[in-house]
Order: sequence, then structure tokens, then C-alpha cells
Amino acid sequence: MIIHLQPNLSEEERQKIIEKITRFGYKPNLVTTQFAEYLVAIGKNEFDLRQIGGMKGVKDIHRVTDSYKLVSRKWKVNSTCIDLGDGIMIEEGKCAIMAGPCSIESESQIRKTLDHLKAEGIQIMRGGVYKPRSSPYSFRGLGIDGLKLWAKLAREYGIKIITEVMQSSQIEDMFDYVDIFQVGARNTQNFNLLDALGEVDKPVLLKRGISGTIDELLQSAEYIFSGGNERIMLCERGIRSYENAYRNTMDVNAIAILKEKSHLPVIADPSHGIGLRNYVESIALASLLAGADGLIYETHPQPEKAFSDAQQTLSFGQSSELTRKVRAITQLAHNDFMLS
Amino acid sequence: MIIHLQPNLSEEERQKIIEKITRFGYKPNLVTTQFAEYLVAIGKNEFDLRQIGGMKGVKDIHRVTDSYKLVSRKWKVNSTCIDLGDGIMIEEGKCAIMAGPCSIESESQIRKTLDHLKAEGIQIMRGGVYKPRSSPYSFRGLGIDGLKLWAKLAREYGIKIITEVMQSSQIEDMFDYVDIFQVGARNTQNFNLLDALGEVDKPVLLKRGISGTIDELLQSAEYIFSGGNERIMLCERGIRSYENAYRNTMDVNAIAILKEKSHLPVIADPSHGIGLRNYVESIALASLLAGADGLIYETHPQPEKAFSDAQQTLSFGQSSELTRKVRAITQLAHNDFMLS
Amino acid sequence: MIIHLQPNLSEEERQKIIEKITRFGYKPNLVTTQFAEYLVAIGKNEFDLRQIGGMKGVKDIHRVTDSYKLVSRKWKVNSTCIDLGDGIMIEEGKCAIMAGPCSIESESQIRKTLDHLKAEGIQIMRGGVYKPRSSPYSFRGLGIDGLKLWAKLAREYGIKIITEVMQSSQIEDMFDYVDIFQVGARNTQNFNLLDALGEVDKPVLLKRGISGTIDELLQSAEYIFSGGNERIMLCERGIRSYENAYRNTMDVNAIAILKEKSHLPVIADPSHGIGLRNYVESIALASLLAGADGLIYETHPQPEKAFSDAQQTLSFGQSSELTRKVRAITQLAHNDFMLS
Amino acid sequence: MIIHLQPNLSEEERQKIIEKITRFGYKPNLVTTQFAEYLVAIGKNEFDLRQIGGMKGVKDIHRVTDSYKLVSRKWKVNSTCIDLGDGIMIEEGKCAIMAGPCSIESESQIRKTLDHLKAEGIQIMRGGVYKPRSSPYSFRGLGIDGLKLWAKLAREYGIKIITEVMQSSQIEDMFDYVDIFQVGARNTQNFNLLDALGEVDKPVLLKRGISGTIDELLQSAEYIFSGGNERIMLCERGIRSYENAYRNTMDVNAIAILKEKSHLPVIADPSHGIGLRNYVESIALASLLAGADGLIYETHPQPEKAFSDAQQTLSFGQSSELTRKVRAITQLAHNDFMLS
Repeated sequence: MIIHLQPNLSEEERQKIIEKITRFGYKPNLVTTQFAEYLVAIGKNEFDLRQIGGMKGVKDIHRVTDSYKLVSRKWKVNSTCIDLGDGIMIEEGKCAIMAGPCSIESESQIRKTLDHLKAEGIQIMRGGVYKPRSSPYSFRGLGIDGLKLWAKLAREYGIKIITEVMQSSQIEDMFDYVDIFQVGARNTQNFNLLDALGEVDKPVLLKRGISGTIDELLQSAEYIFSGGNERIMLCERGIRSYENAYRNTMDVNAIAILKEKSHLPVIADPSHGIGLRNYVESIALASLLAGADGLIYETHPQPEKAFSDAQQTLSFGQSSELTRKVRAITQLAHNDFMLS
Repeated sequence: MIIHLQPNLSEEERQKIIEKITRFGYKPNLVTTQFAEYLVAIGKNEFDLRQIGGMKGVKDIHRVTDSYKLVSRKWKVNSTCIDLGDGIMIEEGKCAIMAGPCSIESESQIRKTLDHLKAEGIQIMRGGVYKPRSSPYSFRGLGIDGLKLWAKLAREYGIKIITEVMQSSQIEDMFDYVDIFQVGARNTQNFNLLDALGEVDKPVLLKRGISGTIDELLQSAEYIFSGGNERIMLCERGIRSYENAYRNTMDVNAIAILKEKSHLPVIADPSHGIGLRNYVESIALASLLAGADGLIYETHPQPEKAFSDAQQTLSFGQSSELTRKVRAITQLAHNDFMLS
Repeated sequence: MIIHLQPNLSEEERQKIIEKITRFGYKPNLVTTQFAEYLVAIGKNEFDLRQIGGMKGVKDIHRVTDSYKLVSRKWKVNSTCIDLGDGIMIEEGKCAIMAGPCSIESESQIRKTLDHLKAEGIQIMRGGVYKPRSSPYSFRGLGIDGLKLWAKLAREYGIKIITEVMQSSQIEDMFDYVDIFQVGARNTQNFNLLDALGEVDKPVLLKRGISGTIDELLQSAEYIFSGGNERIMLCERGIRSYENAYRNTMDVNAIAILKEKSHLPVIADPSHGIGLRNYVESIALASLLAGADGLIYETHPQPEKAFSDAQQTLSFGQSSELTRKVRAITQLAHNDFMLS
Repeated sequence: MIIHLQPNLSEEERQKIIEKITRFGYKPNLVTTQFAEYLVAIGKNEFDLRQIGGMKGVKDIHRVTDSYKLVSRKWKVNSTCIDLGDGIMIEEGKCAIMAGPCSIESESQIRKTLDHLKAEGIQIMRGGVYKPRSSPYSFRGLGIDGLKLWAKLAREYGIKIITEVMQSSQIEDMFDYVDIFQVGARNTQNFNLLDALGEVDKPVLLKRGISGTIDELLQSAEYIFSGGNERIMLCERGIRSYENAYRNTMDVNAIAILKEKSHLPVIADPSHGIGLRNYVESIALASLLAGADGLIYETHPQPEKAFSDAQQTLSFGQSSELTRKVRAITQLAHNDFMLS
């Protein structure tokens, strides 16, 4: 049950509501985000919602039977739009694009990528500075210095930055240089990291776990929201399956379902979703029609020389072609599907 | 290795080629289809292909290192087009639609469906008369009598029939009433059935196994082709995964990859691919953009009363809406993508 | 609901029971096996079982809410024992062993294997004469002639034969030479084959599908039982998973659960369960302690030269060692666990 | 390549070896553990190992082509034994048992559990004080205060403690109260946590990821070892599969393979491996025969009232029975299998 509280509630009013919901047998969790205050009440007893709904200080009350609450569309029917500043938005029907290399490697690589993005009208650059790698002996990224350099350059171009954070202790150092914190597939259920990101007023893109369920993804998003941060994007990046003809199985079903279950934007990662460069375009477009609100993909000035994920990284030519088609599909969907 | 033979080869010429390829250490399999004659030679030795290629009676020779041979795009670069007669084709870029109920139930149900298809310009009707059911106590279909009735009605409307065949012994009885034989996901590796369908001059739609690999699907298609029947469609219908939010995981990756590995048409089954009515449209459109050449989906005059698969069956209204969007996407792809 | 009927029921008595159960809203399925007659009644209404239980001709009545009925332990509490004749039994706590090559290859190979089995006191020989192969160009087995030769030799040694049947039309020819019909993992849901095996009075070993659920396996067994054949063994042979370090994932959980859900004997196939020779022994013993009533594994005079499955086939030395350990474990379980 | 260095090497000798291996085109990683010093050299060039092996300060040199190095059995043939102090060891062939509740709940619950363990001769108690929970609204454990209380009591009984650590920042506070740090299945690839545990001189039990591969598990162990901590146990706890009849699929194949690939002890967790109380014993014994060196399972004074994992927790009676059978099997294996 979600009790949406009025702004500027007095402590006394808040306590009265908490006491009453507790008397009904519910365990209240007070959630204060950038935007509002909520009581998430966990319990099972039946009662007339108006007994709470009519109280002073209650804006609205909703029954949500899902295992996740605040991220559910059951209480917030309209899709969430995330404002990155400077007029850059993640918004339903607009297909935001986030593109860039797997790893940040050098100033030259960053500049070339920014040039490409600028030319294509892409407003968000992806790249890794802390890289989760299966082997301890692999390249693990340029770290905070790489991020600072990247941020300086990106701001020159007016382009936003999304990059992965791997543990809570990195957040403070990274904060000033990052526009979107990305949580990787290996950390979807790193609950301490999620808790920490809940306390940050910056958007978070949360990837689905390597074999994570849709329900687990939504509950992990609930950690961030209930920690205080409403600005969350969900990301489908393929799941692990028995099939060996490609890297991961892009789960377009999950995109369609996430869009219905949650009000949060859903971003598709076709690079990891199939893991083979030549098919990234097809999977990107398929994801869009399954309902994705945006794309995140890997592109690099010289894909075959990338430090990591070379086999799934697009050339700039392929990236331009994909961008063109994304725009055509988005336009078609806008003109023809929505207004039907 | 595939040796494409000239038509009307003399027995003596054929034997010479067979002897020579055998001397090179290859085991020859002579394949005679509706359209041509091939020698599929299995072996590993290296030799100069021109030593065979230059022989009398040899049209062409191709090295194919895949586990499947005749269905590979490595020797036949152009996509296969399947002619169902009366101007009805399965053809790349055209998105053939096959729609209808899970099970054929009654004359009234058949007529209503045919009316709907006719109105939407859909030329192929799907429906089951032999139903593979997990439980022996479930409805198993109307059998051959249902098929005969259906065929009579469908011909009135000029609409083609696709239906599932479950074992070799049914083929003969079904032959006159069927336009496409469907092999279901539980029979993808029923090799006796595949052998038998290889001897039939009628198109076959071969579904991927419930947890079948892409490679296994192509090798199963190779059974049919090497048995003598070139008219095969591959069908992606979702794979089994750990996710329980839906019925199967639609594998759009497989669509993209099958289109590249094989010259055969690829059909998507979004009904089984997600198993929930409200998402079938999204998954159908996603499949199209992943590269599918056609769709097969379930629709019924009263979906909620269908004898089987009710929860994934579209109403006629939903089917009309899907058809409209399929046409818009197909048009867009034709105008904007191909000619880029 | 299972209504166990008295033997030698008159047609009139039978009809009365059928009419009554039908009046209660149940759909009756009359099942006549080698051993007894049952009415499997499918329905949901609640009524006092004694209204049927007290009727003339009714031996017993049981509510079974599982999707499978006659194979459920809910109505038959005691484990089924299967008599192969000549004192050879498949029986709980005795660990029957079935060993032999993947494929029957030659008289010499058969004789050497029989010698090994005889020396070890193994009473059942496995081997394939019809081989389901992914590729149409692979060796497909010696067929019926191989079976006849094998049967002649096996009878000399007093050893029983288990071999795979791939389609209904083979049953008649094979019948006289086979002691147990095996249904392979690709045919677990080949319902026509299951129907046909239901009409045969010979034991059937039914393998779990490549990605089959426990429930599907039990429902497939129900096909055979409800077709008239009670002598069924269930076989766990590993499931398909994402892990590539081995061939299949041996599902010991399934063994433990099948033993509780069903009264049928459960046989483990460690050869396919892991697919790598050096680990077959460990997995065989693990399966035993998970509850298996028997083992089926691959052994060959010269494993590395086997026509098929070479990498998972034991040498006779390894087979002897495994047999010795199986006996020690079986003894321990008998002495120490059962009597605890 | 692993270069095992002599103890008390001078900095000059070390540098000479590093320079030489670098000249051969290898990237050296210097690893200093509680027990020894190693150079793990990553590269591909071929050269005569004696050129390094013969250098002053080199104890031994080994080629290891696996993706993991120091945890591989290729350079350390003998199984690792882990000494917990006070004569308590994790050792091949001895089956160490770690038992206790999912969550530490109260002093009374701890005492009752310790009494049970003491009575059964079980020397290690498991329990959670930081609980990773899918939902932010679930009970998340008693935290550090619970741990302190538990440690005080456990020491009274002379029983060791294993408990889960969820992030690096918890290590310091927990250090004095913990005998084995457990890394949970959601953190197997939390590389920052693994790095931090590499710097700690205390044993670590590393669980396999929810859908982790065997190779990933070994590479994660490599993080800990290469960080400086050799005292690692690997834990198989079941993998996620499509099967819904139980919670996870216990992968006994992985146990057998881990024992061959790595010198580290392998512990089986049958509670999570099947997730249903009545089958835990079967799966525990099966795991032992697959090769496990120890067991970790859940037991509670009142399983049905446990705060978490109630459905998979053994009663003390069941735990005693399991212990008895484990000892019988261990004895049998010792007497009969090893000396064969």
C-alpha cells in the first residue's frame, strides 16, 4: 500500500498517519525522495482505504499487491520522464540514445566519439571507467582520472555522461562528473550499492541481472526509489540462456512487460543483448518496437581495436545508420501507431 | 561440400562424380528434390574444388563447413521464396501472415475466422486438428474430419491452410487438404517425421524446439531438404527460460541469425513467443524488425472461449490492428531501409 | 480422480459407475492395463467419495489433484516393481544396472560387452540400433538386423535388452527382440509414440526431455499408463543449461522429487547426465544417493573408437569399478539407512 | 604462467625476474599471500620455461592455460586444506559440516542451535546477520550487534562462525567476530568485495553465482587469491533453471568438475540447492558422493518459524539424521573407495 503524503506535512500529522496504518496491522516505511514523501505500508489486512485516504496530510492512497510498490504502474499511471538538464530528457516515445565505447581509453578516443555523437544529434555518451571484469588480470578501466578528463570534454560538447559505478564508496568521487549512474548486470542485486544510490539526487540506469527475473529487477529498482531517488531507468541487456550462437538472449518480452508493470522508462542495450556487431541494428530496432524508450549501445572509432567488447561494438558508420533508422521508426510510431 | 548437379544427368556421369569425390575421401549423399539434384559430400580433406567443379554434369560446387549444408546461405546466397499457388508467396520483405485459432473447433468458428482473414487480406489460415497436449486427458483436436471440413471452407474463400502433422502415418491422409505442413516444437527432432516430410512435395514450416538451439533447427531442416523437399520455412516460437512472467522467451536474436545463416524464410510466432495476449502485438512487430519474413499468430472469434491457448489468442479487433501496423512497418522498411 | 475397478466387472456394472461419475460432472476415461481396470475421471466438483466408493465393482477410489493421475504416488503408495522375467527385476533399493554401448556396432562388440556384463553380474544390456542424430549425414544405427543379431547373442547369455524405439511403426518389428523399449529425450513428448507404447505389454523406460519439466515427464508417463501399459520406468538424463563445462546438467533434484511424486522406478543416466567419461562414476553414485532405483550408462570395449558418444563412454575397467562401488553404496543404504 | 618465488627474496632478485618475464612479452602480476609470493605472468609467447625456472629466487614455474591461474590444480596438485584453528579443519575426505539458521534471530535461538551442534559434534555454525533480500521491505538481519552476541556465545562452545559479508566497508567491523567470511550468490562477481577479501587473512567461502558458470566462479576465486588470500572454499548452491518443481537446480556436475579443476575445497549447500526441506538430506548425500569436501545447510530450533528460508530449513532431528548418514558415507568412502 502506498500513501502519498502532502508536501510540508507537520511531524504530528505524519505520526498520526503512521499510528493509524500501524493499528491496521501494517508496517510503515517512510520514504522521502527528491520530489515527494510516501508511506509504503506492508501488510495484508483488508480495510476501507478511505479511513486513511481521508486523513489530513494524505494526498492519495493506492493498493499495490506487487512485490514492488513505488516503481509499480498500479499507483502511478503516467510514465516517468527523466530530465537530465539542458533540455535533455528520457521520455516515452522519444527514443533517447546513449552511445559510446565500452571503455574510456584516451582523450583522442573520447573526442572522436563526441564528434560522432554531436554530428548525429546524440545527447548522451556511454563509457566505462570502472570495468567489472571476470578476470583480475584484465584491463579494469582508467578510473576517476579517466572520468574527470571525459567529463571536461563532454561538457565542451554539451553531451551528458552515463557510466558504471561498482561500489558505494565510489559515488562521492564520481558525483560531480556523472549525469547518470549505471548499475551493471553483476550488481543488480548489490543491495548496499542500491541503498547508496537511493540517497543520491542523480538519475540511475539499473541493468537487469545476468539471469535476473523481471520481478527481481523491479524490486531492485524499489531499493533505489525507497532509498529516496525517484529518477530510475530500467535496462534490458539480454539474459543468459543455453544458446551459444550469440552472447546473451535479448529479452524483448521483458521490455514489453516492464513497460506495463512499471512507470519507469525502459532502455534497451542491444550490444550486450546479442553481443555480435552485425546484428546490433536489428535487435535495437526490434527492442524499440517492443516498447523501449531508449537505447544504449557501444560504438568506437575503431571497434576492432577497442580494449573490451570489440566484437559487439559498432563503427561510427553503423551507428549513424542505426540512428537514422531509429528516427524513422520513432516517427512512424508517433504518426501512425499512437494516433490510431 | 555441396555439388549442385546439372539437370538430366546420365547415370554414368553421376557415378563418375560420385567415384571421384569418394576418392578424395568424402562420403557422398545423393539428394534429389522437386527442383534439383545435389551431392552432399561429407569429409575433411582439402583439395582443389575445380577438380570436381570442372567435371561434366556439375553445375556448381561450394564448400560449406557448417554442420548443416543445403539449408545454409553459404551456397545459396539469395533468399528462398516459397510459392503456395494462386499467387500466394512467402517472400522476403513481404511479411506473409498466417492467422487463426489454436484448434479448429466448429464450422461456425472456421467461417468467422475466414471472414476475418478475407476482410484483412490475410491469405493463410492456421489451426490445429491434431493437437499435441501434455496431458492425455486434454482435448486432442478434431482430427482428419475437422481438416476436411476446414479445407472445403478455406477453398471457398481462396485461403491456404497450415496445420500441424504429428507423425509420418498421418501425412498421406492429410496431404490433399493441407497447403503447409507444420512441425511443432515437440517434434523438431522427430527425425522419422522429418524424413517423411522430405519425401513430400508440399511446403513445411518447421518450429524450433522448446529448448532447441539454432544449429539443431538448421540441422532438422537439413533432414527435410536432404530427404528431397526444398520448400521449408523456419519458425521461431520462443524458448524455455527461467523467467516466469510470461510463457516462453521470444528469441529475436535467433531470427536475426537464422536470416543470415540460412536462405530459408523465417516466420515468427509471437503468440507462443510470449504467451500473453496483450503483448503479442509488440512482440510481432519486434520480430518483424529483427528480420522475420512472416508471422503466424493465434486469433479466434471469442478468444476467452477457445478450446486451447485462450490466454495468448487475439480477438479479431486486435488482429486487425496488428495487421495494419505490420503493413505500415513493412512499407517503411521497404521505402526507407532497403533503399538506404 | 482414480476409480480402481474390480476385476471381471460386468459391462452393466461398469456403465453404472460411468453414468454416476458423469452425473457428478466428471469426464470418465476408461483405462484397461495388463493388470487392472481404472476409471480416470477428470473434473472439479466436490462430492462425497463414498457415493462412488460404495458401488458394486469399485475396488477403491482416490482423489488425485496432480496433472498426472495413474502414475502418481497419491493413489499407489507402494513403489512399483518391474519384472523382466527370469528373476530379473527393477526394484527399489536394489539398483538395477543397464550398461552397454551407445550404438550396437558388430558381433564382436556385442560379445565383448556381454562377456563384461556377465562377469560383473549385470543383467541388462543397453545399446542403440535406431539412433536419433542431429545431422541426417551421421551414422543412424544398424536397424532391425542389428537388433536381431544382438537379441540372439544376449539370450545365449541370459541378459536382457533395452533399446530405443523412435516411432510407432517400428514397434511391431522390434517387439520380439526387445525386453525394454526406451523412449529417448527427443521423443518424451512424441505423444503418438507414447500412445502406441501404451498398447504394448512390455516395459518402457521413458527419458526426461532435453529441457523437459518433471511435470511433463510424469504426464508423458501418464500417456503410456492410460494407454494400457503399467510397466514404466522414468529416467533422468540431465537437462540443458547455460553451463558449457559439460554436456548436460544432471538434475539429482529431479530424482529425489520423482521418487516422491510417483510410484514408478527412477533410473539415472549419468553418461548423458554429465557427458564426460571421467565424471560418470561420481555422478552415478550421487544419483544413487539422491534416490535412483537403477543406472543406465555407456560402456564399450574401446570407448575412444565408439561410433557415437565416445567422450562419455566408460571402459570396462571403469565400468567394473563403478559396479563395485554401486554395490557398496547399495549395501550401506540397505544396512544403515533403511533400518535407522 | 605462475612463477612461485622463494621466501625472503631480495627486491633486486625479484626485479630481475620481473624484467626477464616482461622481456618474454608477459605482463607480470606480483601476488603476496599469507603463505608465499608468486608472479602471475599473463602472455602468450612460447619460451623455454627453464630460462625462468633456473633463476635465483624461483622456487618453481608452471604453465597454466586456464583463464584462472592460482586456484588451478594445474600448478598445485594437492588439495588445499584450510585450518580454522583449535584443530578444526576443512579437508578433503573429512566432510566438514557447517549448520545453523538462515538468519541469526535471538540469543535463545543461537544457544539452542549451539547446543544441537555441540551434541552432534558439528564444529562450525552458519547464520546471517546481513541478509541480502530481494525486497527492501524484508527483514535484513540483526547486523553487527547480532554478530557480536553470536560470537560471544559460539566461543563459549568452541564453535566457529561463518557468516555473509555484503560489502567491503563491513569487513573491518566484522573481522574480530568471524571465522569464515561468506560471499553470497549475488556477490560472486562483486569484484570490489573480492578484492577487499583478498587483503584479509581469514578464510572465505565463495558461493557460485545464481547463474554463474564454473569458470566465472574460479575466476572470482582468483580475485581473492591474487589479492593475497589463499584460504578460499568454493561453494555449489544450485543454479537457476526453467524447472519450477523446486527452488534451484543443485549442480552435482559442478562439484565433480570443480574438484578436478581446482585445488580448493568444495562445499555443497543442499538447502539452497533444492530449497525444499524434505529433499535436503538426499541432495546432501548426493553432493558428498559427487566429491564435496563439506556441507553447509540450514537448521533451526523451529524451522517453520524461521525469519527467512523456512521452507528449506531442517529441524534438529533431521539435522541429526543427516549428520549420522554423512558420517556413514564418509567412512565408507574412506574404507572402501580410496583404498581400492
